[in-house]
Amino acid sequence: MNREEQWLLPEGVEEILPERAAVIEGLRRRLLDLYTRWGYELVFPPLIEFLESLLNGAGRDLERETFKLTDQLTGRMMGVRADITPQVARIDAHSLRRQGPSRLCYCSTALRTRIGLPGTSRIPYQVGVELFGHAGVDSDAEVISLMLATLAEAGARGVTLDLGHVGIYRELVRSAGLNDADEAALSDIYLRKARTELDAFMEERTLPAPLAAALSALPWLAGEGALEKARALLAPASTAALDELAQVAELAGRISASHPDVRVHIDLGELRGYHYHTGCLFAAYLDGASEPLAKGGRYDHIGEVFGRARPATGFSADLKLLADCQGAPVRAAGILAPAGADAALLAEIARLRAAGERVVQALPGADNDPAELRCDRELVFADQRWQLHSLSF
Amino acid sequence: MNREEQWLLPEGVEEILPERAAVIEGLRRRLLDLYTRWGYELVFPPLIEFLESLLNGAGRDLERETFKLTDQLTGRMMGVRADITPQVARIDAHSLRRQGPSRLCYCSTALRTRIGLPGTSRIPYQVGVELFGHAGVDSDAEVISLMLATLAEAGARGVTLDLGHVGIYRELVRSAGLNDADEAALSDIYLRKARTELDAFMEERTLPAPLAAALSALPWLAGEGALEKARALLAPASTAALDELAQVAELAGRISASHPDVRVHIDLGELRGYHYHTGCLFAAYLDGASEPLAKGGRYDHIGEVFGRARPATGFSADLKLLADCQGAPVRAAGILAPAGADAALLAEIARLRAAGERVVQALPGADNDPAELRCDRELVFADQRWQLHSLSF
Repeated sequence: MNREEQWLLPEGVEEILPERAAVIEGLRRRLLDLYTRWGYELVFPPLIEFLESLLNGAGRDLERETFKLTDQLTGRMMGVRADITPQVARIDAHSLRRQGPSRLCYCSTALRTRIGLPGTSRIPYQVGVELFGHAGVDSDAEVISLMLATLAEAGARGVTLDLGHVGIYRELVRSAGLNDADEAALSDIYLRKARTELDAFMEERTLPAPLAAALSALPWLAGEGALEKARALLAPASTAALDELAQVAELAGRISASHPDVRVHIDLGELRGYHYHTGCLFAAYLDGASEPLAKGGRYDHIGEVFGRARPATGFSADLKLLADCQGAPVRAAGILAPAGADAALLAEIARLRAAGERVVQALPGADNDPAELRCDRELVFADQRWQLHSLSF
Repeated sequence: MNREEQWLLPEGVEEILPERAAVIEGLRRRLLDLYTRWGYELVFPPLIEFLESLLNGAGRDLERETFKLTDQLTGRMMGVRADITPQVARIDAHSLRRQGPSRLCYCSTALRTRIGLPGTSRIPYQVGVELFGHAGVDSDAEVISLMLATLAEAGARGVTLDLGHVGIYRELVRSAGLNDADEAALSDIYLRKARTELDAFMEERTLPAPLAAALSALPWLAGEGALEKARALLAPASTAALDELAQVAELAGRISASHPDVRVHIDLGELRGYHYHTGCLFAAYLDGASEPLAKGGRYDHIGEVFGRARPATGFSADLKLLADCQGAPVRAAGILAPAGADAALLAEIARLRAAGERVVQALPGADNDPAELRCDRELVFADQRWQLHSLSF
């Protein structure tokens, strides 16, 4: 291996250098402060866990995304987390065990075996919130509002909120009495929105006409007028599905009222994360983007394997992508201090730093270039006192 | 596997719950701000790299500590970093390529295959600084001073600074003309401070008397009077070793002068991290502790494999252990707001949050216990206006 190859990083793996790191760190702090003001408490789930704990209840997609390791102490399989949400659900169910709702947030690195889409990272710096212990529109509305506040804090403009609900599809499938194999085939067709295959699938089954009509139309029930069309289709097909639709309508109404600057787009055929989510799905897109900047949804069953099924809703985003919404930061200026261990000099440097100044002390014999060190002033002893002189570069 | 086992975390792996997470996050911010004021810039090296890059020049101990993964995209071996310092050295040598000194800091998670000592973590939250491009006492003194400032910021009291220098041992070995096998045997004896084995080792070799005397005495040259004793022993044995000793003496003098509250303890026989370090070694201990809270040293060769050998010195610590120096945080109080989507209510909640208040909105039908939600006031609409009422619990 030559030197160039030693420097190469794996695909989807990047190092973050000072300028971008400062933007990311600044946004990290502002977001965690935002979540604190909304009542969300920070947790740090561990980077690795035993594989069974990590994947339990989390769905099959996550298994493929997870790097496996052997614990040399026990010989058991461990995994590096590919997603933090299931870990936070375990903390709520097992470690906190609160009576009422619990609001938790996190900002940590995850690791994925594969690259999702070109330009995405295998090491997302995942930031998000989870709200446990409440089922209903109020908690979904709170989490969506906080997701939109997150994008605003990141400086994102021109946001579209996609709203869906996997419960409508679930209720129709239940009413149709499909077996597991049929249901798996149908959800696959839905995910690909394969019109011809769907028609063939429906033709092979003898379902009541209203149910067949609803299942045939659902993948394309999106955009302007979708709520009204869905209401007309679902009313004769499934009362339970109609109830789920009412939740979407209520949420859309609330968010439109509280966020007039956000475009709300209904998409009832979206089954993203279907094996994981149980209710409302939401995702925030920037204008013209094909991938969401933040996404989430309701997942009421995940805590069950940890002994406590609690309703749950939350969202997450990659902090690195959120940070890209901002321009470059105004880089901090600083003071270049002379080299040496003189007590009065060291005291003056300490005083300036305590006052919040950035002070770089020159090193003897080194190239202490003020431009490279980003210093716009220098500390000089003249006329019996320490003074700051401007530096132009 | 039953439920209890599912909840179990691997040994040396812990989850961090809200109260401790708040302390850690607070200290993280104060330390990164401290490093910024000293001119150190934050970087985020990647969690994984190709194994060759990760381990190059980093010594054999690190190889055993590193979890290996197969990159499914290329079939090449990757590793999860067990130490961040070599990554930062690569960033300095390869990515930044500055003319003058570069000062970098980091605060990220590493992962180790094994537990070092009882109570230590396999997932250290490693925080540290590295200073590249300057050889000499000034840069070591800067890094040690910043290490001591880190401990002070963490609230540590009663700090002892251990100072050593692997260069003295290296120079004596060079003067003695030991071959690689002998040198490896000797350094192993030194690390275990095995007196009888050392006597036997020296007896088998015919070294000039002053050199034999110095090599026999070095492991126990520690504490009060060690500098004077060492000077007497090294003067006839090796001029180069005497030069290295002068550095330790100079450093000890500077730190004692600038940090009268810190006890400086000389330990010239300490070879910790010998394969990695090339010069001064330093470690900070709390009174009565057997393990250092922060440690570091000079490592001038590590960037060489990345095409640029730069002098380097730095320290690191586990942020989780540093945070344990503090007491519990004063937990933020908050305001419990009523449930609902009323526009005036939402506007009042937004106003309070914008003013920095922590506001938890009640969820309809949930157990919104002010004590569990840590709210000491509630938002009430009375007399035509929103008011804050005290809550006692």
